[in-house]
Order: sequence, then structure tokens, then C-alpha cells
Amino acid sequence: MSAIQSEIRRGAYYDSVVLMQLQRELAALPGVLDAGVVMGTDANKDILIQSDLLTPEAQAAGADDLIIVVKAESEAAAQDALAQVDALLTQRQSSAAQEGYRPKSIESAAEMLPDAQWVLVSVAGQYAAGVARKGLELGKHIFLFSDNVSLEDEVSLKQEARDRGLLVMGPDCGTAIVDGVGLGFANKVRKGAIGVVAASGTGLQQVTARIHQLGAGVTHGLGTGGRDLKEEVGAITALQALDVFRRDPDTRVIVIISKPPAERVARNLLRAARATSKPVVVDFIGFEPDKAVDGNLHFARTLDEAAEMAVALLNDLPEEAPAPEASPFAPGQKYLRGLFSGGTLAYEALLILRDMLPNLYANLHLDGVADLANPMQSQANTIVDLGEDVFTVGRLHPMMDNDLRIRRLHQEAADPETALILLDVVLGYGSHPDPASELAPAIGEARQQAEAAGRHLEFVAIVVGTDEDPQDMAAQIETLEAAGVKVFTSNQEGVAYAGQRVQPLNPLTEGQPVALESLRGPLSAINVGLEIFAESLKDQGAEVMWVDWRPPAGGNERLAAILARMRG
Amino acid sequence: MSAIQSEIRRGAYYDSVVLMQLQRELAALPGVLDAGVVMGTDANKDILIQSDLLTPEAQAAGADDLIIVVKAESEAAAQDALAQVDALLTQRQSSAAQEGYRPKSIESAAEMLPDAQWVLVSVAGQYAAGVARKGLELGKHIFLFSDNVSLEDEVSLKQEARDRGLLVMGPDCGTAIVDGVGLGFANKVRKGAIGVVAASGTGLQQVTARIHQLGAGVTHGLGTGGRDLKEEVGAITALQALDVFRRDPDTRVIVIISKPPAERVARNLLRAARATSKPVVVDFIGFEPDKAVDGNLHFARTLDEAAEMAVALLNDLPEEAPAPEASPFAPGQKYLRGLFSGGTLAYEALLILRDMLPNLYANLHLDGVADLANPMQSQANTIVDLGEDVFTVGRLHPMMDNDLRIRRLHQEAADPETALILLDVVLGYGSHPDPASELAPAIGEARQQAEAAGRHLEFVAIVVGTDEDPQDMAAQIETLEAAGVKVFTSNQEGVAYAGQRVQPLNPLTEGQPVALESLRGPLSAINVGLEIFAESLKDQGAEVMWVDWRPPAGGNERLAAILARMRG
Repeated sequence: MSAIQSEIRRGAYYDSVVLMQLQRELAALPGVLDAGVVMGTDANKDILIQSDLLTPEAQAAGADDLIIVVKAESEAAAQDALAQVDALLTQRQSSAAQEGYRPKSIESAAEMLPDAQWVLVSVAGQYAAGVARKGLELGKHIFLFSDNVSLEDEVSLKQEARDRGLLVMGPDCGTAIVDGVGLGFANKVRKGAIGVVAASGTGLQQVTARIHQLGAGVTHGLGTGGRDLKEEVGAITALQALDVFRRDPDTRVIVIISKPPAERVARNLLRAARATSKPVVVDFIGFEPDKAVDGNLHFARTLDEAAEMAVALLNDLPEEAPAPEASPFAPGQKYLRGLFSGGTLAYEALLILRDMLPNLYANLHLDGVADLANPMQSQANTIVDLGEDVFTVGRLHPMMDNDLRIRRLHQEAADPETALILLDVVLGYGSHPDPASELAPAIGEARQQAEAAGRHLEFVAIVVGTDEDPQDMAAQIETLEAAGVKVFTSNQEGVAYAGQRVQPLNPLTEGQPVALESLRGPLSAINVGLEIFAESLKDQGAEVMWVDWRPPAGGNERLAAILARMRG
Repeated sequence: MSAIQSEIRRGAYYDSVVLMQLQRELAALPGVLDAGVVMGTDANKDILIQSDLLTPEAQAAGADDLIIVVKAESEAAAQDALAQVDALLTQRQSSAAQEGYRPKSIESAAEMLPDAQWVLVSVAGQYAAGVARKGLELGKHIFLFSDNVSLEDEVSLKQEARDRGLLVMGPDCGTAIVDGVGLGFANKVRKGAIGVVAASGTGLQQVTARIHQLGAGVTHGLGTGGRDLKEEVGAITALQALDVFRRDPDTRVIVIISKPPAERVARNLLRAARATSKPVVVDFIGFEPDKAVDGNLHFARTLDEAAEMAVALLNDLPEEAPAPEASPFAPGQKYLRGLFSGGTLAYEALLILRDMLPNLYANLHLDGVADLANPMQSQANTIVDLGEDVFTVGRLHPMMDNDLRIRRLHQEAADPETALILLDVVLGYGSHPDPASELAPAIGEARQQAEAAGRHLEFVAIVVGTDEDPQDMAAQIETLEAAGVKVFTSNQEGVAYAGQRVQPLNPLTEGQPVALESLRGPLSAINVGLEIFAESLKDQGAEVMWVDWRPPAGGNERLAAILARMRG
């Protein structure tokens, strides 16, 4: 015979560690056979059923209520156990109090530890977003271990972080390594030259551990949380992490680990990976890529292989990283403007640039390319087909008449954000008899005006034609080159070259860049939630301030809502 | 200080060359800083805004109105310039008139140049379909440069052309090369052995120019217009072009260039490409194929690669094209009839033949295969599964009982359109103990009757079995071969062989075939629209008659509509 007794505490909040420990302590009491201490969610009730611990009282509890169940050898033993709950809870509190003063809020913790770059959040899901938001307001990066955070909160937190040049790793981020210090769950990995971005906690652990075993090390292992690469979130954190690794001179090889992302997100991520100009190992776990190598991208099929490829790529690099080339462009010059007369050439250019440049616009429809709001006005990186119907009503095709294209060329050249203008020059019968004679002077003039304004403007032309065309192809090329134009006869090569020129000018992500210094040097953190994370940071030599955090209104949501309304 | 003056001419039609030249002449007048001469569309008004040339008058103009704007150093200079508009227009008219008599209609041009194979149409979009239709009625191929033509007009023009054995290239067809002569925009490309089909003008230019640069040449470069491969048009022109290249002995390698087409259209096009039995390079721009080579199809990813692959394939061919094999079949024999006892064998046969033969019917459902209206009656190319329920009510399965199949075999053999009969012969336990003993005499009889009627009937059998089957597989095969049957033991090989035998008998497209001679020899054309196309044809040694074309009612659409109603 055994007896079950339960107690329900309405609207009470306890740290999940406290609940776990209370359950263990109850179960260890004399005469007690088993105990359950859980919040009254449906899932938890199911777990109680499995353990034969669900009482009618517990069944009736709500998700905000704390259920305490004890199964004992006798009614008396069960009652004795329940009678000790308050004492056990108080005892835990006082032992914590012995450690000295603990701030009650993130704000006061931040005043006590002003250099803290990080806030670690591991409170229950419904409070986590609020805590994280406060951390962002204080200018801290967030390591958000908590799960059960809504997708809407994740998106708004990450957008705010991006605008402030801060990282939100998570929610449900198990692991990160920042300049040698592990946050959350992390292995002890030596410092080195491999940067890892991971939407997977144990993936990050497996890969960084393997890198260490192979004798190499990591600059940072940046976690993103498992949902970062979903369409709704759009890889905000992963793109920031890639941007960090692009700019960080200590990072020489990059690894990306994730389950296969949404197609549009994968395209953006791979475009950003290409734009880092560093070797990038990509492991979209379980995804079979078409080819093993694509430019600077190297596709791995397993976590082990990802680590091995990264180390091999690192070992193949020269010992010294090359000094970065100084940019000839003025600050603010960022964009490519392609003014095409040939529709298919424009289309192929888009296909090539779509994999290279963010914020690509056109007056042609293509997945992953935005429609120009007004074809007369370029936006960010733009490819415009000037042979489209809208331009040719009562006007000659731009292959015959350079007037419209020259006007547009001057318009683009006058835009301080334009860095490079891309043109096709299609020779042959029917086309203008001497297009270079009109384009070259306009280009020369545009370049001079830009230079006078302190800007450096580049021109790339793709000349399509044959040596037997009426225009004299060689002379056309010579005239354009004399005007300072870089000339190609292959559309593919010319467009790829132009894309590579402006790639370094385009940020990988919107918002403010994350300051590299904020990830370097002695790590200092405010811990809100599980004590164990504060302890492990201390063990690693980091400074930590552990906040004695309580939910608003002691976890009573109805009361908290009333308070919020009264303040509002 | 500068002054802007404008003038609006309502409902006036001018050739776009006239407008361009008027604009240039105005801009060159003393004291004039800039000029704009455009039809009053919204897009053109936007362009005037960009150039700081939009006046309130111009803003108020309609799409049918001609806007003339002059920006000059003074009011007087602007007025002087505008005062010269009529003189400048008249001067252009009279200079054109000096070139001698020009016919006012296509009909009279066709009388003056009866050998003309082509009508080039580059008038404004709203008139282009009408001009093209007249050209078709006169038995001419159409090169339709004009854009802004409706999809409905395109479909009806192309259907009519196909019925007449004529080509309609376009609308919005920028480029074609016919036997060395460029139409529209085209490079001077040497003649050679590569035929190019392109739904893309500059794609055709880039590929043919590259072919030339690589030392090879083209037979024809046939443009289709960008919408030809849309579901609604169904690749009518592209299929005609493939049919031309299949029959043209001078074309030894074929290139297809297009944006990725609709799936059903792509399947038809690739089937036709396979049926050419020549190496075909396919560049569905931006489409990543599963495999690089599939039989005679070779997939390219860029325009450059397409040209390079075509030249490499050509160089790999023996110097002399093999003499085409004389067909053993009588005219009118076209179709394959497959009489299967095994359902899965029939289904696999359909999967293979779907990629090889047009007009494929069956009593099994499969995408891209039509349902037989009556399973007892074959249509065009037919695969019938005689084991289907409808055939086996109160009857033994055809693997056990040959009666139904032999009756059907005689029925197919008597059809003068049947060229080949395909059978499966499934041995093993449960099957007929000696199927060849019944099938072989029936086949012999059917072949004799066909020969007596002047036809050549072929039989292909797939024998499925093992050397330990009760029927003696080797003896079964021997008996069938003795009756003149081509025997396979692999379903895939047997079906593919049968498909290949009838492939040359099946047209790639409906309607009349385009006469190869109409694309060869001295090119002669009627030009309606831009003068430059007439001039470039003359430069290339072609004969041209340039029609002094005017729109109905001088371009006044309301008046034209009234006239049309009065005539109607």
C-alpha cells in the first residue's frame, strides 16, 4: 500500500533548479517513495501519469500553478513530507544568501559590473524575452539559453540587437565559445583561427571538440539558436556572425553548421559566406550538395568531416594572413548599377549577382531579386534592362540609340552610393554603328565628375560581337579601354568581375556591425537564471554577477498583468 | 538661366527613328541645351523628369500624344527651336522620298519582290500583329521585332504560321541569322554546322558571337521571341526550329537557349531535341540540370559554356556527316503500337517513350501521356496493357491466353499508319507453356500481308524469363527471331530500340514542315518599320523592299476604330 498526497501553489514562480532540487529532497525524506514537483502544464501532467503521480487536484491545476506530489509508504509520511516544503525552500534561499549581496535587477548588476559584455538568460521561457530585452537596452550581447520563447519575440529581439550592433544567441542556444570562454554547455577548446557559426548546440560542440582534437582551435563559436535559419527569422544572428568572422583578422577559416535551412535563407547565407572571401566549410546536416566545392565554399556531409575540412583548409593557408587591400572607393560608395541593352544578358547577370550581392533590384522578375519600385530609379545594387517594353514606347531600342542609356549613366554616376557601372555593348547588324564613340566620352566625363567630388567610379563593359561585325570590335574595345573601362567579351566573366569589385563594399547584414573588441579580452557577464552557468564562467576565469532575479508579481501572471496595466 | 518650352501633338504617329533624329537635331540647334521628343507614356514622362525636361503641358499629355520639349539658354532660343520642328520633319520626309518609289503596302511590295521569303515587322506594337498576319497570308516567314504585342495575337499568329509551314520569330524577337544573313540585331558570324534556337535575342548574339570567336559557325540562328516557351504558346516556333535543324543535313550540332520553360513545355522541347538524333546543347539559363549529359542532350549553365560545348561537340564529330539512312517504311507509316501483357512493363515503356515520342496514348494514366478514348482502338503512338481489368472480365490473363493479343496484333498490322508492333513475352510458371508457338505464326502472317500492301512492318519483343523456366527461353527466342522479330531480354533496351525506330517517322511539330529551301540561298525581305533593318540587310547583300507604311487613320486610334467599324 502506498499513499499519494499533493499540493497546488497557485501563481507561484520558482527557478527550475529550485524545483528539481525540491523534488530530490522530498524524495529523499523517510518513507517517501517518489515525488513530483512541476508546473501544471499538460505535458507535465502526462509525465506525472507515466509515474503514477497524477492526483485529481494536480489534474485540475493550471499551467501557472506549481504541483507538488508525494507518494509515500503511508498517509502520515506523505503529509510529513509536504509539511516540509516551505522549510526546504527557505533553507535553499538562506544558503544562497550566505554568498553575499546579490543585485535584484539587471540594471543594478550592470552598474556593479559596468564592463560586462554579456547577459546570460536562463529563466523560464515566459520571462526570458523581457529579460533579454532589458539586456539589449543596457547594450549587452545576449546568450539566451531559455526555450519556450515565441518566434515573434525572437524576431523582434534579433532585429533590435542588429540595430544596436549586438548579438542575440538563441533562444534555446545551448552553446557558445567567446574568445576561449564557453557559455552554456561548451567543451574546453583551444584558441585558434577557425570561426564557427552554429544553429545547433551539440553540432557546435562536436565540431569544436573535433577541431581541438585535430590540433587546431577556434576564434569564436557563435551559436544562433535552432530557429535562426527559419524563413521568419532570416538568419539574422548567423549573418551577423559571418560578418564578425569576415572582419576578424584572427579568423582565417569559417564553419557553418545548421539543419538544411529554408531555400531563400540558404541563398542569403551562402551569398554572405561567399562574400567573406575566406574558406567556408558548410555543413547543412543531412543535405547532399551538388558539388563538394564551389568557389570558397566547401560542403561537408557530417560534423566530423566539417571539422576535418576546416583544419585541412587552415593548414593549407600561408602562415601569415595577407594584409587586406586598401579600397580605392570613397566611404559611402557601395553599389553596382548595371545598365543593360540585352534582356538575356541582364537576366544572366542577375543570376550571377544573386549569389554574390545582397539588396539586388531589377526590372526583371527573378526569385531572390527585388522588383524596382520605379524602373527609372535604381535602388542599392540594381540591374536594369533598358530594352524592356516600358522604355521602348516610341523610342528606339537602346542597342540603336544610346541617348537613354547615357542619361541614365550620368544619373547613376551622380549617385554618391554608386561604386561601379556595368554596361553591355552589343555589336552587329542593326546595332548602333559606333556605340563606343558615344559611350566613351560620357564615361570619361562621369569619371572626372566623380573624381572631382572625391569618389572613385569604375566601369565594366561586356562587348558582344565578332571580328567581322560592321563596328570593328577591336576598335570598340580599344576606345572603351582608353576611357578607363574594364572590358570583357564574356558576359559571365564581366559580371562576376564586377560583382567581386563591389562585394567588399556591401555589408553582409543590415544594422550596426558588432564591435570585434566586444568579443575579445576578459569576458564579463551578468547571469540571470541558472546558477550553474555563473559557476562555470567563474571556473573559466570570467567575471560574473549573478542576479537574484524574481519574476514580476512573484510569478503570478494575472497580478503581473494588472501591475503592468497600472504602470502603462 | 535656362528656359523650357514644349509642344504637344495629339494623336500623331511617327516612326521612332524619326523621333530620335528630331530630338538630336533639336538638341544641336544654336542655344539649345537639351531636348526630348517622346510619346507621352508615364514611363517617358518619368524619363523627362530625370532630365529636368517635364513641363506642365507635357505632364498633361496622353500616351498617344507626341511631346516635344526644348531646354535652351533663352526663351527665344527655345521658341526658335520649336518653330523648326515642322521643317525638320518635312526635310526628313523628303530625304526619304529621294530614295525613289516605295510601295505603300505589303501586298504591292510582295508583287515587286515576289521571291521575298521574309517580312520584317518593327512597327509600333498595336499595329504589328495586323502587319504580320498580312505577311503570313502572302506566304512569308515573319521576323517580328515589335514588342507590346498581346499573347493572344502571338498564339494565333504562330498557329496560323505552323499550319502554313511558315515561321513567326517573335514578337519581341531581337535577333536571327538566316543562312549567314542577320535579321534585327545580329553579329557577323561565319556559316557553319551549328544550328541555334533561342528564345532570347542577346542570348543568341552572345552564343553565336562566341561560336564565331571559337572558329566555328552557324547554319541558322532562329529566334522565337521571349514568350514562345510559355505554357500558352507551347514552344510552337522552337519546335518548328528544331524540326528544321533535324531535317537540315548541314546542321550537325544544335543549341537551345531559353529561360527555364514551363515543365510541360520543357518536356516537349527536350523530347523533340532527343528526336533530332543530333547532339543538342541545352542552356535553360539559370537552371541547374541533374546531369550534364543525357543521351544526345548536353546541358550548359551559361551562354559561354553553351557555345564552347557546341564547338567541342562539333569538333568531335567525323568530318563527313554520315549519309542519312533510307527509311524502309512506306509513307504514312508513323506509329508504334505496344501490346503488353505485363502492367509494369507497359508502365515502364510509357516512361521511356514519353521522352521520345509525341502523341503518345495509353490505357494507363501518366503525366504527359494521353488517355485512349477507347482501349480497344489505338491512336497515334499507343501502349495498351491487355492485362487491365476491362480486358480480363471472364477471360484468362493475356500471359496465359494469346487469343486477345493476336486479334489485336492483326488489327494493328492492318492499320496503314502502324510502323512497329512491340510485345512483351513473359515466361515462367503460370504463363502460357509455349507462347512463341502461337505468336510467331501470327506475326509472320501479319508481316506478309503488310508487305503485300506495300508496307514494311517491324516487330520488337521483350522476352522476360530465365534459363530454368518451364518454357525453354532460348527456344522461345529462336522461334520469335525466325519469324523476323527483334528480341530483347531487357524491357528498357527493347522499348528504347522500338522508340528510336519510329522516332524519325514522327514529326516534331504539327502543321506543315518549313521548307528548308525557304531558309537557304539569297535572302530577300520586305521591311515594314525601322529603316535601319532594311539598310543592314542591304549591307549584307540581301534584297529588300522597304514599305512606306503608315498606321490606319494616321495613328489616330479613335478614328481607326470608327473606320474599322464602318468597314466591318
